This record gives sequence, structure tokens and C-alpha cells, in this order.
Amino acid sequence: MQKNNINNIYYLGPNGSNTYYAAIKFLERENLTSLNKLPQKSIKSAAENFENDINSLCILPIENSIEGIVRETLDNFLTLKDNSIQIQGEITIPINHMLLSNAKNKKDIKKIYSHPQALAQCGNYLYKNFPDAELKEVSSTGYAAQKVSTETDSAAIANITCSDIFNLNIVAENINDEKGNQTRFYILGRNSDNNLNMGKTALMLSTKNQHGALCSVLQIFAKYNINLSCIESRPSKKKLGEYVFFMELDGFKEETNIKKSLTEIKNNAEFVKILGSFKEYKCS
Amino acid sequence: MQKNNINNIYYLGPNGSNTYYAAIKFLERENLTSLNKLPQKSIKSAAENFENDINSLCILPIENSIEGIVRETLDNFLTLKDNSIQIQGEITIPINHMLLSNAKNKKDIKKIYSHPQALAQCGNYLYKNFPDAELKEVSSTGYAAQKVSTETDSAAIANITCSDIFNLNIVAENINDEKGNQTRFYILGRNSDNNLNMGKTALMLSTKNQHGALCSVLQIFAKYNINLSCIESRPSKKKLGEYVFFMELDGFKEETNIKKSLTEIKNNAEFVKILGSFKEYKCS
Repeated sequence: MQKNNINNIYYLGPNGSNTYYAAIKFLERENLTSLNKLPQKSIKSAAENFENDINSLCILPIENSIEGIVRETLDNFLTLKDNSIQIQGEITIPINHMLLSNAKNKKDIKKIYSHPQALAQCGNYLYKNFPDAELKEVSSTGYAAQKVSTETDSAAIANITCSDIFNLNIVAENINDEKGNQTRFYILGRNSDNNLNMGKTALMLSTKNQHGALCSVLQIFAKYNINLSCIESRPSKKKLGEYVFFMELDGFKEETNIKKSLTEIKNNAEFVKILGSFKEYKCS
Repeated sequence: MQKNNINNIYYLGPNGSNTYYAAIKFLERENLTSLNKLPQKSIKSAAENFENDINSLCILPIENSIEGIVRETLDNFLTLKDNSIQIQGEITIPINHMLLSNAKNKKDIKKIYSHPQALAQCGNYLYKNFPDAELKEVSSTGYAAQKVSTETDSAAIANITCSDIFNLNIVAENINDEKGNQTRFYILGRNSDNNLNMGKTALMLSTKNQHGALCSVLQIFAKYNINLSCIESRPSKKKLGEYVFFMELDGFKEETNIKKSLTEIKNNAEFVKILGSFKEYKCS
């Protein structure tokens, strides 16, 4: 992890969002809590401001265990022009939804605000405990908490950090219907981590538009005994049925087999962009 | 295409939605315009009501050239229990966004309603032509048109069918920034089309959770010279990093090579669900 000359970190805000929570956990782990925390309105503006600031890091959500790969993050990888940008690490956090309110008692809560995904993930809990409450969809869990901080008869579904930031009571903890909900984030910086001796490699590639092209690429990984831990297609946005593929491989990019496979694949693909090699890290 | 005893068709409404437009085009093509058209509030309720009504068809969006695969449709395939349900056809329509209003002149338009994706897809047009208008996000293009039909100073971005349904003026045509935007839909029915002599096959499968499992599956298709035209991963929703894969293959399921490959794959996969074989159909 590159730390010298790093002053700023960009992420999807507002403060209190799940990305903010992941950023806090990451900064604590890396002893980087003195960085300026710069929340952004969208994944796109986080990526753009990071690209224009060489003294910065960026943290972006890549995958949620229920919703899947975060497409907006993949699409932004394709538009980054600075080739020194690399994924330098990852962090996985549990998504524990809390019910936060100025009210202390459930009976005083008439409206519940949150992001549509969070409302859906707590659907059974809400149905049982708040059958008559009005459910209000807003653009983020952080915004929901901010909104209810000015009201007395409403609650927000948001993460634990919002309780401190907006001075709200925790009315109920871990109200997700399904336990085990997790989100994984990438940390972007400049240059590679040259001290890796194990890890994963992320890349994007587009195959030549011909019969069996994707299969040829996958056969090359198989030949070198490289396991594909993740694959996702994104539309080329030019023509229906033309794709760019995002993949994660077990192994780091300086390993002999990974290097050999990537050299061969470059001959078989329209383009290959190595996003970086990094270690897995799960946060309890 | 099975037509006997079919009385109803379910789709994502409201009338005026892009799925409604695709449904109209499909019914015209198949001489099925006498079916009862039953718009539904969500993809989920369209799939569920179709499953409970054996005298019906259902049309669901599967892929947009800009946004990619429609995840909600894939997730609903996994929860359908009636094994006689099969994809019986597909239809691809151009997405041409129109600006519709009770007002006749652009200068009278102060607010513009649409689905967030449609607003984004017309971003440059709106920036140039309506720099001061308030952009309002709503849940569908059809709802946007319904909303502006009761107002005099607003416009909706929606498809051409909304002009008739809500009696609105066409203020501007084809205002998408990128041309060539298309959406592809599946038509679901019961039983297979046994008259196919060419086409595509759609399926979902989950691999055993072991090193190189996806690659083994893809190698089987390669061995039988079967082209994979589409692959998408969805989370198993049980554990981060466990996936179910959606695939489309060139060829119909009664072809010898497809049959042989599927038999082999069933030995290598946790489960395989054949969604159906059907012909491509593009609508101008």
C-alpha cells in the first residue's frame, strides 16, 4: 500500500454511507486516519476527483453479496485515463442495518426512510414491527439518517456510524431479514504494491467479436491452472450483444503463470486492462 | 409459439412503458392482438401472475444495450417453480426517447419528468435545450407521461405510445444522446417450440464451488463447438463470491451437440435450468 505523499481520500458520501463506514475501517487498519476525508455525490465524481489528484486514494464499492457486482464502479474503470492507477487493496464489511431515530419508542415512529435496497432487505422486519408505517425511498442510507435527524416521528435504516454523526438513538440493531449481507470495496491508488506474495488480480478485457472468443480466453487461464474467482459482463454500449468482461483471478500479476497467461491473452483480446493485484481483507 | 388457449399477457406496466411497446409489437407480429393486456407493477408480479395463469404469456425485459442484463428478470427465473415454463420467443425494440407535453412550445416547459436512466440517456440534449428546467426522477417513463398529462408546464421523456395514451404533444423526437439504444425482451409461455430449426438457448447454472469449475463448464461448450453469446453472473445470495450463471448459446436445445454438452454439464454443475430455445427477432 502506497502511503507517502497521500493527503486525501475520495468516496461515495454522504458521511454515514456504507462506503464511509468502509473508508473509516480501512483508514484505521492502515494508520491513515489523518487523511482528509472527501465525500462525493456519486461514484463517478469520486473516481474523477481521485484521478485529478495524484496525492489521493479512492474507495469504491465493487460487490454486494445480495445485489451482485456494482456496475457503476466497473463502468468508471473503463473511463479512467491515468494508467498508473491501480487497485491497491480491498476491504469487505458486514452490512448491518440499524433503525435510528430521534424517537426512543417504536410506537412513535410513523415514517421510515432509507435507500430502496435497504428497505427491501428489511422487508419482513418492517412488515412485522411497523405494519402501518409509511416507507419512504431516498437516494442513500446516509441521506435518510440526515433527514430523520430533523424529525420526531420518523426513523432511518442506516449503519451504526449515522447514530454518532446525526446524534440518533438506536431503536433496533441488525434488522436485516437475511444475515450475512456483506459489501466488498476496492481501494485505488497509484502504482502497484510490489511486496505481494499472494493475492488476487482484477482485470477487464474485450474479446474479438468471433465465435468462441471468450472461451479461448478462459482456456488460456485453465492451461496455466489459474482459477477465475469472478466474471461479469458489461455491455460495450455500442451494440447489443457486444461485451467487456470484468474478471478476478487467484494470484498476483508478477507470478510466472499469471504473467504468461496475460501475455497470451493479449494476443487473443481486443484490449486487456490490468486493474491491479491486492490481498483480500475481511472486516468483522 | 404456443397460441391455443392463450387469453392473457402480463408485462411490466403502466401502459406506455417500453415493455408495453414491445408487447404491442409482439402481439401484432403474432396476430395475438385480441389477448387481454394485463400491466403489472413490477417484473416480480408479472412473473408471479403469469405462473398462476396457465392460459397466459408474459413479456420481460432481458437486456438493454447501455445498461446491460436486467438482473431482476434473471432473479425471477430462479424462483419460478412451474417447470413447463419456457422462453418461447424474443423481441428487440429500439428505445427512442420522445419529449411529450401538454405544452406545444419548449419555452413553456419548466419541469421534466422521467425514469433516472432515461434522464441520463438524454443528458446532453437536456443540458443544451433545457438548462434551467427542473429534472424530476420518477419510477417509470409511463408514470412520467401520466403525471405530465395533468400539468401545463412540464414534459415527460417517454416512448411514442404515451403520446396517444395520454393525449400529449410530441415536442421533440429521438432525443437520446447516443443513437442505437435497444432493449431485448423474452416472451414466456408453457412448453417448447418444437418447430425450431435454428435459434438460441438460454440457461442458468451454478457450478460446484471448486477451483476452475466455471472453466470446466465452458470447456465442454468449446469441445462441442458451441458459441456462448452471453454470460452474466448473479450472486447466490448466500455467500459473497458464490454465483449463479446465466448463459445464452447459439443453437437450439434439440440439436445433437447442444444436447450432448448439456448432458455432460449436468455432471459438472450443482444445478442446470434450461430456460428455453427461441429465434432472434429485431423490430425496426
